[in-house]
Amino acid sequence: MASSLAVCMLHGRVRGSLVKCLQNADKFLQRSVGTNVVAAQFEATRKEESDEKNGRKSLYALQEERQEQAERSVLISCQSTTNEKKFLKYLSKHGDINKYFFYQSYGLYAVVEFTNRESIASLLEAVAIPSISHESVVPFKSRLLSLRNLGSAESPNQLSGKPCQPQTTILINELIQRLSREESIDQQMTSLTEAYQLTEENSRLRFLVCSLLKDIAAAYFPECTIKPFGSSVNGFGKLGCDLDMFLDLDGISGWNVKIPKSGMSLEYHMKRANSERAVTQSILSVVGECVDQFGPGCVGVQKILNARCPLVRFAHQPSGFQCDLTANNRVAMKSTELLYLYGELDPRVRCLVFTVRCWARAHGITSSIPGAWITNFSLTVMVLFFLQRRNPRIIPTLDHLRDLAGPADKSMIEGNDCTFVSDFSKIQVQSNKETLEQLLSGFFEFYATFPFSRMSINIRKGKEQNKPETTPLHIQNPFETSLNVSKNVNATQLERFVALCQESSWLLQQSDTNTPRGGSGGDTVTTWGLATLLLPSQVAGIKGRKRKRREPASDRIKSLLESLKNKS
Amino acid sequence: MASSLAVCMLHGRVRGSLVKCLQNADKFLQRSVGTNVVAAQFEATRKEESDEKNGRKSLYALQEERQEQAERSVLISCQSTTNEKKFLKYLSKHGDINKYFFYQSYGLYAVVEFTNRESIASLLEAVAIPSISHESVVPFKSRLLSLRNLGSAESPNQLSGKPCQPQTTILINELIQRLSREESIDQQMTSLTEAYQLTEENSRLRFLVCSLLKDIAAAYFPECTIKPFGSSVNGFGKLGCDLDMFLDLDGISGWNVKIPKSGMSLEYHMKRANSERAVTQSILSVVGECVDQFGPGCVGVQKILNARCPLVRFAHQPSGFQCDLTANNRVAMKSTELLYLYGELDPRVRCLVFTVRCWARAHGITSSIPGAWITNFSLTVMVLFFLQRRNPRIIPTLDHLRDLAGPADKSMIEGNDCTFVSDFSKIQVQSNKETLEQLLSGFFEFYATFPFSRMSINIRKGKEQNKPETTPLHIQNPFETSLNVSKNVNATQLERFVALCQESSWLLQQSDTNTPRGGSGGDTVTTWGLATLLLPSQVAGIKGRKRKRREPASDRIKSLLESLKNKS
Repeated sequence: MASSLAVCMLHGRVRGSLVKCLQNADKFLQRSVGTNVVAAQFEATRKEESDEKNGRKSLYALQEERQEQAERSVLISCQSTTNEKKFLKYLSKHGDINKYFFYQSYGLYAVVEFTNRESIASLLEAVAIPSISHESVVPFKSRLLSLRNLGSAESPNQLSGKPCQPQTTILINELIQRLSREESIDQQMTSLTEAYQLTEENSRLRFLVCSLLKDIAAAYFPECTIKPFGSSVNGFGKLGCDLDMFLDLDGISGWNVKIPKSGMSLEYHMKRANSERAVTQSILSVVGECVDQFGPGCVGVQKILNARCPLVRFAHQPSGFQCDLTANNRVAMKSTELLYLYGELDPRVRCLVFTVRCWARAHGITSSIPGAWITNFSLTVMVLFFLQRRNPRIIPTLDHLRDLAGPADKSMIEGNDCTFVSDFSKIQVQSNKETLEQLLSGFFEFYATFPFSRMSINIRKGKEQNKPETTPLHIQNPFETSLNVSKNVNATQLERFVALCQESSWLLQQSDTNTPRGGSGGDTVTTWGLATLLLPSQVAGIKGRKRKRREPASDRIKSLLESLKNKS
Repeated sequence: MASSLAVCMLHGRVRGSLVKCLQNADKFLQRSVGTNVVAAQFEATRKEESDEKNGRKSLYALQEERQEQAERSVLISCQSTTNEKKFLKYLSKHGDINKYFFYQSYGLYAVVEFTNRESIASLLEAVAIPSISHESVVPFKSRLLSLRNLGSAESPNQLSGKPCQPQTTILINELIQRLSREESIDQQMTSLTEAYQLTEENSRLRFLVCSLLKDIAAAYFPECTIKPFGSSVNGFGKLGCDLDMFLDLDGISGWNVKIPKSGMSLEYHMKRANSERAVTQSILSVVGECVDQFGPGCVGVQKILNARCPLVRFAHQPSGFQCDLTANNRVAMKSTELLYLYGELDPRVRCLVFTVRCWARAHGITSSIPGAWITNFSLTVMVLFFLQRRNPRIIPTLDHLRDLAGPADKSMIEGNDCTFVSDFSKIQVQSNKETLEQLLSGFFEFYATFPFSRMSINIRKGKEQNKPETTPLHIQNPFETSLNVSKNVNATQLERFVALCQESSWLLQQSDTNTPRGGSGGDTVTTWGLATLLLPSQVAGIKGRKRKRREPASDRIKSLLESLKNKS
């Protein structure tokens, strides 16, 4: 049972404002998780969002705002028979509700954000510790609650009866149909990005999970924060992607207390360790133990403390997120900030990245299992490099961003210069007017003919460099410049990538492909444009497309089952 | 190194207002720990204490008061060159100091109690996280601090130069000499009790260690308390005894929140377990992990979770206490309360218990290693039973105390009736005027002739009962009445006890023994009275006294070394 729950969990995907199991998951998963789709209620603050876009808020500002919202929020497991109005009225006794939405995961859940933090304290005072016959509970209190609804069955306004928005998890086949209805390749790429990117609600849910986890870590380190990094916040995250978190202890006061040159001073008596790594392992070990033993809804906890970057991995059932918690992972945070910045500089960046990633996944170029495949991060850096090579450049080089940096931007992490500008207004973008379609074609052409055997991809310089080593693919790590981010990729995988770039480039030049066929009004839609590129490839040696398309989650299940097997 | 530290630790004994290593410990221990004796500064509130005695404060009231004091206190590692006045002036910047004292353990320490709790917050704001080259620290902040004193060497008022009170750890030989100088056996028994019982300062230190540990547990269970139980608070504790603690989660709100019969209500989502025992194990496991990885000064942490009563054992270096942390150990708490009550009812109770225990330890009747020996608890119950059998009774039976109980005293724990009166004023003590000497003689006579083979000792009824089983010694557990608290005792050990009772009874009747010889003014003192009873016995089969007397801590070292060996 436990393992099937854990498997279910990994299937949790966020779709629109919904989190639900992949519909193509095995039948038993469907039975145990349920696939009902319930409409999300969310008063989207479109204006605010667009202001943010124009003002191009820094990642730090965004994170602080989201963290603060999360601390005013609770996560409530509801029943589908719950009367929405009564539910809101019940909660409003404790204060004004700022925002709320429902989503389906392993059951129906509500995220409720109060206007004031005091409402949380008021609410929790009235919450009972469950008493279950023949079972005991670990009385660790959190903001993850369950709604009990006793008495007469409700009928009007039930959540299960709410008009459902057509919120299904987008499968690749559905995406192909949807894209085929669009009237230009540019529109197709925008539509794909909108379908894949994280929603406002999903982003809030991610920060709420961080905040719940922070309550666990803050028990011992009251001044710590837990920040999401990577795809959850870099602007390139796909719905359903893992939640990577970073326990930040740098904010703890007392590190920089001035010690007088004479006279008395006090120091904390603290446990010592040989290295910062040992301290990180020790802290993650205890936090992992707590998550495992106390953390409601946290299952399948694995402590992977001997990894290069020690981490605690677990599944957070109520949100459906697969979580990785690290500490002291400062370079990864800088990487996140850089990708976020590139994504904010020009809307074409995200559209091209989402499109290329979706295309790569459809053809098995990327995979969620570790191996010789090209990673999403490598692929993203390739897109960024391509955009730097346009004439005029669409995005600046990292060296240029470093040169624009102010004193406050200075950042040296373990001997690596991670300095770059954070103030968007200092960055002047050149006036490249290429369309998304031109850029997509350009991308395929560029990499179909790139001299991979001799040259290295380098976004710091914005120019290919001679390869310092003989690995098939060399992409310089932007911050740890002696490292190759694609060291794992073997010749076969690189060849497949090049062959697929050639094929797609060729397809985009065919009038069959590049003529819009959508919007005809009929039920049958003819695949065209970007949609065609997502269909199984004709390139020799590229097999198994169909299987991959039908079971995009099977890799995840496999690797999870493996890890469960290893545990037991 | 670590293991020798741990060994040292266990030698920590509290003597007067000092904690120092046993002087008879092996040389290497002396070298590593140091045996300097530093005078304790403590403004003893004698009047308050005597008021408390007369008012006979309940154990709960006493615990609450002590807990509150502990929360206003910090524990500071000092240097012996510290200037006391400057030290106090430095701390006073953060608020008025209510009480303070110094003691020697593994280094010199100060307990400082502020008048207001806010002073702690103010003090901690100014405390630095230590930065040590080539080492890292786990930034867990607690109220255990280290004093740094930079600049010119101080000379006047140094702590090491303070006039020392003659505060040495009392060894049995010294005790024998001291007792021989007293002028009556009654005075000898009072003197022994004063030399052995916990001091005001030691009691405060125990509550402070509980409070520091509470800060760790409270991280997850903010409403929990950690209470000392057993010898630390039952009135029968000897200086240097283990610190038994009890994590009390019953105070957590939310257990008894009323759930409305209809409408909505909220419950915490919590991890479930099959039994309360499993929950206890889970909580102790995490708390043990935290103590091990984060707890400053906590060494040799052992999780003994599969014991009948799961516990976490560790040595708290700064205080010198060997600590056992349990949870949900409610019957033990009731036992503590009962012993405390009996001890408070009549001052002769404690004097007789301390005397009998010291006598038993001197003859190897009790031991700190588990085995077939009679335990201190069994011995205490035997003394209580003897006092119930006097005519008139000196203390009431447990059944009588139960009959006097009010509704608030009602206590059923796991099906056992643990009810007894807590209001001292309801208990009428009969006017027995026997002297301590008479009681000591009486005790030895009573047990020299007790029909152990047929009868069971029963403080609930205050009368011997027929034995329900064939174990050599049967003492009914006062609360879990189907259990025998001395099940472990074998026939040999019981025979030794009886033989020693006979011998001591006989000795007390000899004029050689019972004639005071002290106070002669000369340097040589002739052993007499109680002191004679503590000398090696002439009873056949009772060997090894000398060894035991010289190395009272050797058992502890052995068992610790064993446990360290097993660990590594």
